[in-house]
Amino acid sequence: MSRQVDMALMSAHEYRRRLAEPKTVLLLPVGAMEQHGAHLPIGTDWMMAQFIARRVAARIDGIVAAPITYAAKSGVRTGGGNFQSGTTSLDGITLITMVKDIVKELVRHGARRLTIIDGHFENRFFLDEACDLAMRELRMDGIDDARVLKMVYAAEFPNPLIDAVYTDHEFPGLDLEHGGLLETSMMLYCYPEFVQMERLGNESAARFPPYDLFPPRTEWVPASGVLSSGLSATPEKGRLLVECFVNQVADAINAEF
Amino acid sequence: MSRQVDMALMSAHEYRRRLAEPKTVLLLPVGAMEQHGAHLPIGTDWMMAQFIARRVAARIDGIVAAPITYAAKSGVRTGGGNFQSGTTSLDGITLITMVKDIVKELVRHGARRLTIIDGHFENRFFLDEACDLAMRELRMDGIDDARVLKMVYAAEFPNPLIDAVYTDHEFPGLDLEHGGLLETSMMLYCYPEFVQMERLGNESAARFPPYDLFPPRTEWVPASGVLSSGLSATPEKGRLLVECFVNQVADAINAEF
Amino acid sequence: MSRQVDMALMSAHEYRRRLAEPKTVLLLPVGAMEQHGAHLPIGTDWMMAQFIARRVAARIDGIVAAPITYAAKSGVRTGGGNFQSGTTSLDGITLITMVKDIVKELVRHGARRLTIIDGHFENRFFLDEACDLAMRELRMDGIDDARVLKMVYAAEFPNPLIDAVYTDHEFPGLDLEHGGLLETSMMLYCYPEFVQMERLGNESAARFPPYDLFPPRTEWVPASGVLSSGLSATPEKGRLLVECFVNQVADAINAEF
Amino acid sequence: MSRQVDMALMSAHEYRRRLAEPKTVLLLPVGAMEQHGAHLPIGTDWMMAQFIARRVAARIDGIVAAPITYAAKSGVRTGGGNFQSGTTSLDGITLITMVKDIVKELVRHGARRLTIIDGHFENRFFLDEACDLAMRELRMDGIDDARVLKMVYAAEFPNPLIDAVYTDHEFPGLDLEHGGLLETSMMLYCYPEFVQMERLGNESAARFPPYDLFPPRTEWVPASGVLSSGLSATPEKGRLLVECFVNQVADAINAEF
Amino acid sequence: MSRQVDMALMSAHEYRRRLAEPKTVLLLPVGAMEQHGAHLPIGTDWMMAQFIARRVAARIDGIVAAPITYAAKSGVRTGGGNFQSGTTSLDGITLITMVKDIVKELVRHGARRLTIIDGHFENRFFLDEACDLAMRELRMDGIDDARVLKMVYAAEFPNPLIDAVYTDHEFPGLDLEHGGLLETSMMLYCYPEFVQMERLGNESAARFPPYDLFPPRTEWVPASGVLSSGLSATPEKGRLLVECFVNQVADAINAEF
Amino acid sequence: MSRQVDMALMSAHEYRRRLAEPKTVLLLPVGAMEQHGAHLPIGTDWMMAQFIARRVAARIDGIVAAPITYAAKSGVRTGGGNFQSGTTSLDGITLITMVKDIVKELVRHGARRLTIIDGHFENRFFLDEACDLAMRELRMDGIDDARVLKMVYAAEFPNPLIDAVYTDHEFPGLDLEHGGLLETSMMLYCYPEFVQMERLGNESAARFPPYDLFPPRTEWVPASGVLSSGLSATPEKGRLLVECFVNQVADAINAEF
Repeated sequence: MSRQVDMALMSAHEYRRRLAEPKTVLLLPVGAMEQHGAHLPIGTDWMMAQFIARRVAARIDGIVAAPITYAAKSGVRTGGGNFQSGTTSLDGITLITMVKDIVKELVRHGARRLTIIDGHFENRFFLDEACDLAMRELRMDGIDDARVLKMVYAAEFPNPLIDAVYTDHEFPGLDLEHGGLLETSMMLYCYPEFVQMERLGNESAARFPPYDLFPPRTEWVPASGVLSSGLSATPEKGRLLVECFVNQVADAINAEF
Repeated sequence: MSRQVDMALMSAHEYRRRLAEPKTVLLLPVGAMEQHGAHLPIGTDWMMAQFIARRVAARIDGIVAAPITYAAKSGVRTGGGNFQSGTTSLDGITLITMVKDIVKELVRHGARRLTIIDGHFENRFFLDEACDLAMRELRMDGIDDARVLKMVYAAEFPNPLIDAVYTDHEFPGLDLEHGGLLETSMMLYCYPEFVQMERLGNESAARFPPYDLFPPRTEWVPASGVLSSGLSATPEKGRLLVECFVNQVADAINAEF
Repeated sequence: MSRQVDMALMSAHEYRRRLAEPKTVLLLPVGAMEQHGAHLPIGTDWMMAQFIARRVAARIDGIVAAPITYAAKSGVRTGGGNFQSGTTSLDGITLITMVKDIVKELVRHGARRLTIIDGHFENRFFLDEACDLAMRELRMDGIDDARVLKMVYAAEFPNPLIDAVYTDHEFPGLDLEHGGLLETSMMLYCYPEFVQMERLGNESAARFPPYDLFPPRTEWVPASGVLSSGLSATPEKGRLLVECFVNQVADAINAEF
Repeated sequence: MSRQVDMALMSAHEYRRRLAEPKTVLLLPVGAMEQHGAHLPIGTDWMMAQFIARRVAARIDGIVAAPITYAAKSGVRTGGGNFQSGTTSLDGITLITMVKDIVKELVRHGARRLTIIDGHFENRFFLDEACDLAMRELRMDGIDDARVLKMVYAAEFPNPLIDAVYTDHEFPGLDLEHGGLLETSMMLYCYPEFVQMERLGNESAARFPPYDLFPPRTEWVPASGVLSSGLSATPEKGRLLVECFVNQVADAINAEF
Repeated sequence: MSRQVDMALMSAHEYRRRLAEPKTVLLLPVGAMEQHGAHLPIGTDWMMAQFIARRVAARIDGIVAAPITYAAKSGVRTGGGNFQSGTTSLDGITLITMVKDIVKELVRHGARRLTIIDGHFENRFFLDEACDLAMRELRMDGIDDARVLKMVYAAEFPNPLIDAVYTDHEFPGLDLEHGGLLETSMMLYCYPEFVQMERLGNESAARFPPYDLFPPRTEWVPASGVLSSGLSATPEKGRLLVECFVNQVADAINAEF
Repeated sequence: MSRQVDMALMSAHEYRRRLAEPKTVLLLPVGAMEQHGAHLPIGTDWMMAQFIARRVAARIDGIVAAPITYAAKSGVRTGGGNFQSGTTSLDGITLITMVKDIVKELVRHGARRLTIIDGHFENRFFLDEACDLAMRELRMDGIDDARVLKMVYAAEFPNPLIDAVYTDHEFPGLDLEHGGLLETSMMLYCYPEFVQMERLGNESAARFPPYDLFPPRTEWVPASGVLSSGLSATPEKGRLLVECFVNQVADAINAEF
């Protein structure tokens, strides 16, 4: 369980040995560099995706590739908008191409069981497109037995978990869980040294109309950059969330690979 | 009210006169060419987006640009997957660039109030990206007063509407409303001549795991290609849906422009 | 003969049955959104390409894919120039990629006999490039038996037809037949409800120097946007033209497929 | 008149002095690497464009940039097709981007009067697109006073010239003038050392149907690769042609710049 | 000195405060995921670039952006070649575009003093291109006061340093310092827990002909993947190297910003 | 030995015969359009690459493709910077794609032994990338037996040669050999008619800091544009250099093909 799981930190010789073992799964965390209010770090999305990927890898003896840190632009209604300072994003076309390149390289190494763990909602269709293109180009190059499982880490939210976490206010929906109770609790559990609870104000959940504007109306977004309240966050709630999501990812991998 | 609303069907001279009127809104419907089971036409997504755009345009004296018919790939869990025959999609990069080009051209004509009506869920982030890039390039070209409002036509679903429509089974969620009760009712109301109710079997809602696979598992998708049941569809339910969505779009436009 | 020919209007199940029949030809009309003076609609180019494709399809039991409406930029000397309001074009690179994507998708469905009907002169080399790239990528993907026949609908102009149509003035050459006698007659025959003959002035054929300028000299183009006179247009002349072109396309298909 | 006209052969210091003179015109020849039968060199298209550009430059004290040698794919019906060995072409997207880059660089140097001389028919719309994009990007970069005149060198063919050249057979149309009487005569006049008249057979003009096929039918093209007969070519005919075309280009430049 | 320097680990609010201070420098480390033999981790290049960037940032009160980990393909003669398992690279075009996007985003935040620290030789011209394009696009967007200083961290190698480090064999040149004495010593000093000296064999420096082959001759590269010997590496040598390079970068920043 | 070696100047029929001979090598010279001071022509880089390629081809009975004249941007510290008038460069992405296209076309003709001779330092990684992509795409298209040897013509500089050439000052390193003793001597030997020694001032070698700035500091570059002194250049030194480099290229070809 204490084996190194990070591909970047192991030697290529070790990596090859690990990849040659039967059924080794290679996990690729994807997040974002995105403002998460005054209390959470800019790297929150990829840090959480990486944390969960490492936990899963430790359990299934997998390998975690270096996380994709710069990724899709932040949506106004799901991340505060890409006009925010600190939010550092790629054009969608760049992201598609970058993820495609990386998936193809990992498959070239011999990986056939890839799992992408996504921690940034706005990556969704760009990751799908990247995977589709990678499969197409690999097929053109004679490789048709590689498979990618792509999963948002908070894909499913069982009711008991919601009840245990949302003790002080209602679950605002995942779209508004940007810097809110879910992420704050998880970060308190995983990376407490980078959470500044004292900077967290009392925010009610943001309210948005059911459409997007370009250029965005910046005044739609609360000054904090946070879309719902993380005030009742605790490390224990974070533990429950992380364990649930780790189980979900591990179950998916076991079901498919 | 009986004025021509379709840009493609009016002369450029007429178009210029209309665009020169105060506050003219230009609507761009976006859909897909995507299988919708045995009972709905392949063009369902863009046909519905166009229908709603025309209704809105008639009400607000707007103009409807030619619909974007070929668009984003179909997701397995939201449209049956892009491996289906009949589903005819663009690569994501192509879609982004095409929509960007069209938006910039419409702004070059003088349009400053654009509204994109989306009828295909998978277009979402590609449209956002296209709008973001168009705004950026227009700004570089000295134009900073154009605005785009982008809205999925079924953005919000009020409870009374759900109650009135889902009389025989529960609302399965929008993801599964592919060829289901919502689209079938709307098509029965808008384009009854292209709906073949007699070909509609008794399908229960599809069930998918909370992740995507590349290449897709084709066996996940029901043979019909439909993700939930449209058996209880009626033109009257379609009318309720269409009127609700037309109101929502018109309200959004009135609020912003 | 009264079978539905439009792919967008048939169900995917029907489409598959039709495509599985021996020697089914799939036709893809390509046009433009381009100003055509005060009397013809902006969609003229794709509307005519679609009309001819439908006629051909009805005759040979083929299928007509959704038309490509937004396409190549308008040339000053052949369409009035891309600075005109109403003319709505794609960058050349976008057009190449879009048509390539669509051709590849149709082949993925099983289509092996494709026919592109082009109604906009400026599309020419972009369509050629798109077809060349599609064939290359399909070949890389293991498919080498698909074929595309690409034809401008007014490819050949037999002298008796010219004599029958150009009763009042000389044939000005196809380059100047932008909004002129040919297109006006055809539209009068095919879509009379969208032609406004009363808005047609008495224009002599435009005269251009034998070169192009960038940026264009807008004063080269008549204010009407029309490059030659359509005053003597009649539905009967349109019928002669349409029937000739339908025959030419059908003959080409019969010769090759 | 004997000043160096080739930009590649002058020093940058000399180039800057020349460009700083009032109204200096910079000419960019564009051709192709394309088979031209057994008797003409592969470089024929760019060699002729360069020859004419040099003559014009000598007359108007202009500068000739290094020719674009690799360019658009050869059409079956206009150049024998891109399946031929020896024909060495760029993808259309590459060509657009390359010409755009070069035009922008020349404008960066201070050139404001550019003239593109095209010697390869298939370049047409790709050059137009490149110029359009270059103008757009320069405008975004604050430069709006650069102009490009683009001209095919055989843009107009006066009847007396046709009569003087086509003494033994009818003018087959420019499309079939691939390796035929026009190019052979011009090459005999300009570069006699690279013409091998003894390898020229007695070819009648090729006949093609009015459409294109992808992949091409290679059997449509004569084995020689030549589309009409150059047997009656003479250096004197070449001189007449060259002088006519040089005059046309010079006249265009004088009219516009 | 103990302030957080990592942008990813600070909140966006903190980041904005820091960026608003006078003359704040933003450092962007760029490396690679590249095999470095049996004894060094795959992430060596970006880990070292990040380490040096952090040291510099601590000294000048700068901020270190998240490192670019996936980058340019490995050259055979400088990194063992891109056919190696573990080496995970982007296409050059992807890399250019990604770095361009990130630089533009950081400038959007207000950063005007950027410093790219490169730890992977093959990135060189792609980074230059990215910076050139970013400056161009920012200029088009009205921003002309941002500056980027780009530096390979081992840009200069003073003789006393070479003498102190190369005690047992001659300096083989930077090209061959792949997994050799320089990198091994630095990693021993910076990240000793990820260095496995016991896996390091006795390698003489690789010898390559003065050209490249495509596809590469894999037999040119030693089985270890290392191009020269790191056997005499010590943490103390690493300290000397790191301090020298940190000084060089800091001096450059002080000279320019 | 007096056979035509230039592909552009031979007919396609001759080219095919030559390519069909056993072991024919096809050489592709790549250079730049780049200022080289007051005494050397802008085309120096591609002219020298072409000269050497022709010499090699004459010796080994090879073929020289048309040179790539427009290529990578000029680096400040290696070519005076891309802000110079006269320097005419492609974006890196354009260059990669163009060279990829050309290599693929030459292989389509049947060439299996390609040699790229590079005369412009900044092309390096773009050429590598182009070759890598060409090999990949050819492989996808079923061709895996083509090989490209890529070599900078001044790849190795034996000490006796340095001693014979640098009689009056020390070898400044290849980076500073821009318009200096090496290139001036070679041009005096190969193209004396285009060298203006009388315009050459007494320049000491430029000195640059070990980093790059974007946008560049133009004042770093000497006003002449030359980075080291060519005053002691002679045709005889040029002969020694050319013969050495021709031998190196020929030796490489003999070793590999």
